[in-house]
Formats: sequence, C-alpha cells, structure tokens
Amino acid sequence: MSEARPSLGQAAQPLVAALVADAAALRLEVGRSATGATIVDGGIAAPGGIEAGRRIAEICLGGLGRVEITAGSPFPAWPFRIGVTASDPVLACLGSQYAGWSLSHGEGEGAYFAMASGPGRARAVKEELFGELAYADEAAPGGFFVLETDRVPPEALIERVAADCRLSPSDLVFVLTPTTSLAGAVQITARVLEVALHKVHALGFPLRHVRDGLGSAPLPPPSPDFLTAMGRTNDAILFGGEVQLFVDGPEDAARELAEKLPSSASRDYGKPFATIFKEAGFDFYRIDPMLFSPAKVLVTALASGRTFTAGMLAPDLLAQSFDGAV
Amino acid sequence: MSEARPSLGQAAQPLVAALVADAAALRLEVGRSATGATIVDGGIAAPGGIEAGRRIAEICLGGLGRVEITAGSPFPAWPFRIGVTASDPVLACLGSQYAGWSLSHGEGEGAYFAMASGPGRARAVKEELFGELAYADEAAPGGFFVLETDRVPPEALIERVAADCRLSPSDLVFVLTPTTSLAGAVQITARVLEVALHKVHALGFPLRHVRDGLGSAPLPPPSPDFLTAMGRTNDAILFGGEVQLFVDGPEDAARELAEKLPSSASRDYGKPFATIFKEAGFDFYRIDPMLFSPAKVLVTALASGRTFTAGMLAPDLLAQSFDGAV
Amino acid sequence: MSEARPSLGQAAQPLVAALVADAAALRLEVGRSATGATIVDGGIAAPGGIEAGRRIAEICLGGLGRVEITAGSPFPAWPFRIGVTASDPVLACLGSQYAGWSLSHGEGEGAYFAMASGPGRARAVKEELFGELAYADEAAPGGFFVLETDRVPPEALIERVAADCRLSPSDLVFVLTPTTSLAGAVQITARVLEVALHKVHALGFPLRHVRDGLGSAPLPPPSPDFLTAMGRTNDAILFGGEVQLFVDGPEDAARELAEKLPSSASRDYGKPFATIFKEAGFDFYRIDPMLFSPAKVLVTALASGRTFTAGMLAPDLLAQSFDGAV
Repeated sequence: MSEARPSLGQAAQPLVAALVADAAALRLEVGRSATGATIVDGGIAAPGGIEAGRRIAEICLGGLGRVEITAGSPFPAWPFRIGVTASDPVLACLGSQYAGWSLSHGEGEGAYFAMASGPGRARAVKEELFGELAYADEAAPGGFFVLETDRVPPEALIERVAADCRLSPSDLVFVLTPTTSLAGAVQITARVLEVALHKVHALGFPLRHVRDGLGSAPLPPPSPDFLTAMGRTNDAILFGGEVQLFVDGPEDAARELAEKLPSSASRDYGKPFATIFKEAGFDFYRIDPMLFSPAKVLVTALASGRTFTAGMLAPDLLAQSFDGAV
Repeated sequence: MSEARPSLGQAAQPLVAALVADAAALRLEVGRSATGATIVDGGIAAPGGIEAGRRIAEICLGGLGRVEITAGSPFPAWPFRIGVTASDPVLACLGSQYAGWSLSHGEGEGAYFAMASGPGRARAVKEELFGELAYADEAAPGGFFVLETDRVPPEALIERVAADCRLSPSDLVFVLTPTTSLAGAVQITARVLEVALHKVHALGFPLRHVRDGLGSAPLPPPSPDFLTAMGRTNDAILFGGEVQLFVDGPEDAARELAEKLPSSASRDYGKPFATIFKEAGFDFYRIDPMLFSPAKVLVTALASGRTFTAGMLAPDLLAQSFDGAV
Repeated sequence: MSEARPSLGQAAQPLVAALVADAAALRLEVGRSATGATIVDGGIAAPGGIEAGRRIAEICLGGLGRVEITAGSPFPAWPFRIGVTASDPVLACLGSQYAGWSLSHGEGEGAYFAMASGPGRARAVKEELFGELAYADEAAPGGFFVLETDRVPPEALIERVAADCRLSPSDLVFVLTPTTSLAGAVQITARVLEVALHKVHALGFPLRHVRDGLGSAPLPPPSPDFLTAMGRTNDAILFGGEVQLFVDGPEDAARELAEKLPSSASRDYGKPFATIFKEAGFDFYRIDPMLFSPAKVLVTALASGRTFTAGMLAPDLLAQSFDGAV
C-alpha cells in the first residue's frame, strides 16, 4: 500500500461547490453558522429531493463514487433503484461514506448527537479505522461532512470539529439530511456497498484484500415517522440490496466471506428492521451487528476466478417494510 | 414558494453550447437564420441520433434533469429504456419540457405551426401555467427552444419569439426534432414524467404538493410514417411508462391521484394511440385528455409514508404499437 | 458523408488527461517510457478496477461514447451489467474502439504482439477500414491507444507508432489492460456494440446504412487464467449481449442482417468460448469469425419502421462460462 493515495477532500470539493451553487434547483437551503461553517439544509426546513440526495451521496463517497438512480429494480412493485460504484470502494466507502465519527455535545434533553460521514472524517482522523486504512487526508482543502440529523450542530461542536480537522470553522461544510427526508432516503440507501464493506471488516476479512465492489438497492419511500423511515432505508439494503465484491486472497476465504456476508446470515434476519428495533427496546446494541448487510452478495475470488453467491432478495419482507408502518 | 428559484435558461446554456460544439459528433447540422437565430437540425436533413436526442431532452428539461438511456426495460422484446430524473421536476418538466407554447405563422397551406418546449418558454412567459408556477426566468441568457417539427420556423415568427423574450433573434436557439427522427423518438419519450405531471395538473391536484418524481419508458423504434411514429412515442409512455411521484398533502388526495393518474384510467385506453387518433378523425380534441399518462404510477404520500400504486404495464399493446403499422 | 467529422483524438483528450490525473484514485500506475511515451498500467502491477475499466472503455470509444455500469442485468445470477451508447457508433466503435491495428516487434520468444484499439488508430490510419470509413483524424492532438496486454510495448515499437502517427513518442499514451484484470474485463466487454458493428461490416452490410446503435452485456468475473478470462469476456457478449441497431436501406436487408447477426447464427455457437478455442487448437483462424457477436439483436429498419429480432440470451451457457474453468 505504498502507492500515492487520492485526497478524498480534494475529489469531493467540486461536488460540494456545485451542491452549494445549485442549491436553488436542488431545493436546499444554504446558510452560515455563527462561526462561519456552511450549513446545507437537505430536508429539515428545505424540501430537498431525490437528486439532492444522489449528489449528497456522491459527496459522502469522497468524490470517488458514482451514484445513479435508474429504473429497473428486481422488484416490480418498486421500479426505481440506486446504484453505486467507486474508483476505490474501500477508501470511498469506509474512509469517507461510513458514518463512523461520533459527534456529540451536551447532555440530557438538549444534548446533540450525530454520526458524521463524509470526507472530513479522513481529515480529522479520529477513528481507529483510519489506522487500518493507512490513510489520512492531509491535502483536504476543507472538512466536508454529511449528518443524518434534523438539527443544526451547536457552534461549540462545530469549533471542536474544526480544531480536530486543523481547519477554521469557515472551512467546514455540514450537509444535514434527516432520515425522514427524500434526500436522506437516497443518501442512506446509497450505503448499500459501504454496509457490505463494513461487515467485511467486522468479519475480520482483510480490507486490503477487497479489490473492488459495486452495489444496488431499491429506492425506499420515505416516511415522516423516524422509526419507519429508518426501517425502510435499512430494509432496502437488507431485503433488496445486491452487492458484488472482487477479493484477493485464498478462494476458501472468499467462499466463507460470501456465506457470512448476506443479511440472511444473521440470527436477527426475518422481520422489517423497525420491528426488530422495537423488539430490541430501541437499543441498537441488542441487535446483531451482522444483520446490517445486503440481501444478496456475490464474492468473486480473483485468485481463482470463482464467484460465490449467497443470500437472496426478499420481495415479501420488502413489501412489509415499504408498504407498512410500525 | 418564496425561496430563490434557479434560472432554467442559465442551467441549460452550457448544454446548448455543448450541443452546438459537438454537432459533428452528434450528426446535427447547425445554421443561422437570416435574422441570426441558431437553428439546430436534429433530424430533418441531418441524421441526428439517440445520443443527440438524449442531450436535447436534457436541454428540454432546462438543464435541471438527467436523461439516461439504459438496458433493462421491463419488456424483454424491447431491452432499452429512457430514464428521467430532475432536481426540481415540476419546474423542469412543466416550466420547461412541456410543449406548451403554441407558435404559429401564416394561414392555409403554407402556415407554420409548432408547439414550443424548452427553457425559452419561461423567458417568454406567454402561458397561463407560469402564473401557477409563480415563475419567470428573467435571468435567462438566451431563448432556447425545442420544436417537434420537420420545418424551420419562418423569420417573422423567429422575430416575434425574440420580441416576446425581450431578446434579439441572435440570442435564440431552435432545436428541431421531427417526430419521425431518432432524436425525436428519444426526446419525446423522455417526456414520461412531464406527461404525468401535466395530468396531475389537469386533475386539479396542486402542483406545489408535488415534491419529487422520476420516470422511465422503453425506447420506441421510430417510423418514417408520422402517424406511426407519433403513436409509438405516445404508446411508449401509455403502455410502457413508469412514474413515481412523492407528494405532500393528505393521504386521501394521494390515493385518489394514483387511481386517476395511469393511462388505463382513461375511457380511451386500450388501443395503440395511432388507431385512437385515426378513429377520432385525426382530431386531438376528440381524444380524452386523461389518456396522456404513464402506464403505471406510484404515488407516495409524504405525510403518511404510504405509497399508492395503480395502472399496469401492457406488453401486448406495446407490441402492437412497436411492431405494427397503422 | 461530406459533413464535418469530429476528431476522435480531440474528443478523447480530456478523458485521457482525467485518467492520468485521477490515477491514484483509479489505482493505476502512470509512467514514461525511455522515449517519453506515457504508459498507464491498468492491471499489470497496478490493481486497477471496474471504474478504471469504464473510463478506459470511454477512451476506447474516442470520447464519443458513454459506458455505464448498472445493476439490473437479465441474469439474476449476475446482477451487474455494462451499457454502451455513442453519439456516432460506427465512428466511435469501428474508427476507434475496434482492436484493429496489429502492432508487433521482434520474433520468436521475446516477440511483442498486441492489437491496438483507441482513437490513435485513426491518427495512424494504417488499416484499410479507414478508407471505408472515409475518416482520418488529422486534428488529433496525440496518439491514444488501449492495448489488451500484460507487457509494456518495446521502445522501438513505440517509436514506430509515433512515426506512423506523425507525432513524437511523448505525444503517445498507451493504456495497458490485461485480459485477466478487472479493468480489462470491463473494457473488453464494453465492446458489445463494436463486435456487432464489426460483424455487420463482415456480413457486407454497408456501414453508411448504420445510423445508430446501443448495447449491453453482463459484467463478467475476471479470471487469473488467460484462457478462462478471455472466454468469459467473449461469452458475456455471445451469451449475454443485447444490441439494437437502427439502419437505413431496404427492409429486406435489415431483416437479413438481423437473422445473420446474433452469435447463435454461427456454426460454432453452443459452447463456452474457451472450450471452442481449445478445441480449435488455440488457433483463432479456425473459429468461425461469425461467432463474434451479441446473443440477441434487434435491427430497426428506419425506412419502414419495422424491427427484426433474432438470437436469444443463453443463461445456461453464460453460467457454464462465468462459473466454470477450462
């Protein structure tokens, strides 16, 4: 891994600039925090929309990914889908798109909490994961973050993030997409490949052996109910997600990875996510972390050329989730 | 609707410039009228083609839309399809793509008539619809129009359009795509979402409640016969079009909209369009205006998160249209 | 054919520049030969990847094509596919993408041999085909080539290519994608439309009558074994490729073209390509050249508007190829 690495921040910068420049067309609202950070409202007071979500998803991927909304999902009842490819999927998905940096401020009722995703994470390098990725984005010209939230982060938190990035608050951009918004539904579902790669990592499979990957999931209808909305974005992936990975290393490891990777390999598989979450007392930590993965996976072992397929699309469970309420 | 609005003309300008610059590759012919308007021949003497049609469709959408030609239609016999998304679908489709401005000149045999579409409509603001859209494109740097025609507009008409746009004729661009051309087949079929939104409006559903939408329809084979060609572009939508809308307002209104929206809700549904048109004595006004809409629609009520689906794809009727002649 | 023609080299130049600029993200290695030619390693020592292959395929098409990797193939077992469109398919595919220029140097064991594709072919104009295309790319700012090889071309060959292009070696770019690499699998399979057009030509159908076309084929899993890898990229097209052509000329000629065009019209059809190649004693010239074509074709006769369909997708044969080894 001694080769030159791209700067996620540099690659994302033109996309961030275009998002701000096209805010009117994308129906986003752009403002400044007191300390000068750019705040992009992707669905709180602003309506936002699907194309805004698609563009935000490409920012999430650190400018290294392509996110397409196309017709032709495997579910006739839900004809539109989201596709994801990237020029360096491990770096794009885990180094940028993964919502891995926990931001919090205050305590009790007024406390602020959000998991930050986006290329700014690799500028801050506060997560252990970056050691494993052997990556830090010194060249990033700013700190670009996407938060799945319906609240603007407090100034004190913005200043802390700026300090962690060794930048001034005016170099930061926070794009806010509530779970219940259209843009949120798109950018969260566009994590179908990232979710797979995160589970690859959790399973102990070496990330350096993941050469490439691509993914797809149906576009979930948003819901004004947070629990339902969150359930649907998860279920789009758990019941409708398809991912193919191309991995180095022994064929047996690829086979084993394929068997363990799909959502159906989890003990908690079988119900819409919102139901599972409810039954777990709204406690994420009581849910099997191995649940979070695509419905169907293909793992191609580059060393042998064999492809191992596991899991399956689940139209009935998808229908329960997309049609239903909790 | 007090937020800043994008300029359709500004957003389309780089696409228009690229269309002209790439004319040789796109097999278009670009000329100047006597008064200086730019005339782009998209399939009269010039051959044009599918990619030209795709780009013209994005110009039609006022630079706010994405039009993709992809494999994977729901009809195995017709594997390629056209997909449409937009950052602000109501503005892009109704404010620009809709062929809503009636241009005519002269009378009798030599009379010229064409319905203008494209972002120039919002510069001219001659249609009532713009009152409802609360939109006028003062910032447009030129008047860009797409005409479904096989004749160059007469100079007197060009001068009148320039005057209506408060521009000089040399600021106008007319892209001409005959119904029978490949570029025409693409750019007309790319109206699948616009047709749905136009019917939404005709049904009295408030446009301001339409938050988002996307659409898809199979690529129809063109025909040298005007009636057959027109029939196929319509049938691609009526029998093969799929649209999903995301709407605000009460759930009941969304359900009612879904029920009324598909083509099959029209009393005239059930035959290829060319046949219907012939039986109506070639008089559009004798055809149920409610016929013009996609085969299958999903309407997601954002207020409740429920999705209402109505209509159905009609492979047999599509085959009658795409395989047959009138 | 007296109209202005685009310069393939000019259209490809920004794509080549972007490929080099984004080499780190695309995981390519860029170097210089002793004589100054730019050498892009797309999968020899560098890992490369799917997005690199997609971009290389667009360079192969002389900057006139669009290559998309999307979900939704007609084969549930192989969900991702490659789609190809172009603004001038005959010029893009046959004038640039076709690997038609035979480059060789030396003899015996150390001999170098590669078939060159890319816009540089039209700068060199060493093939008879260019006479038929009535095309020579005098305006090309450089010589851009893609080679399906795992070896860097020798300096003497580079100098000869430069001389043939009337350029200096430092104006040349060679992108190297081994058959066994991910980028190779993508850029070779992206020839689905080119393969069809080449057979159109071999069948004696006039190229000037081909107005337009588009194609699609499933993404084949690469193999480290050259024979298996080559077999799969061929089989992706022979058993999974879909192409639609739009042709001028008499309807009968279109019908006849459709009947002869699909792979299944060849006497050698029916086994994975690697098996056929093995049985032919690894001698390409013993294989029916009419085998190299898409599984399923639609030919639309523009003169009548009728579409002729022939051939069929072959999921079982595709499975034998993609799942198997030789």
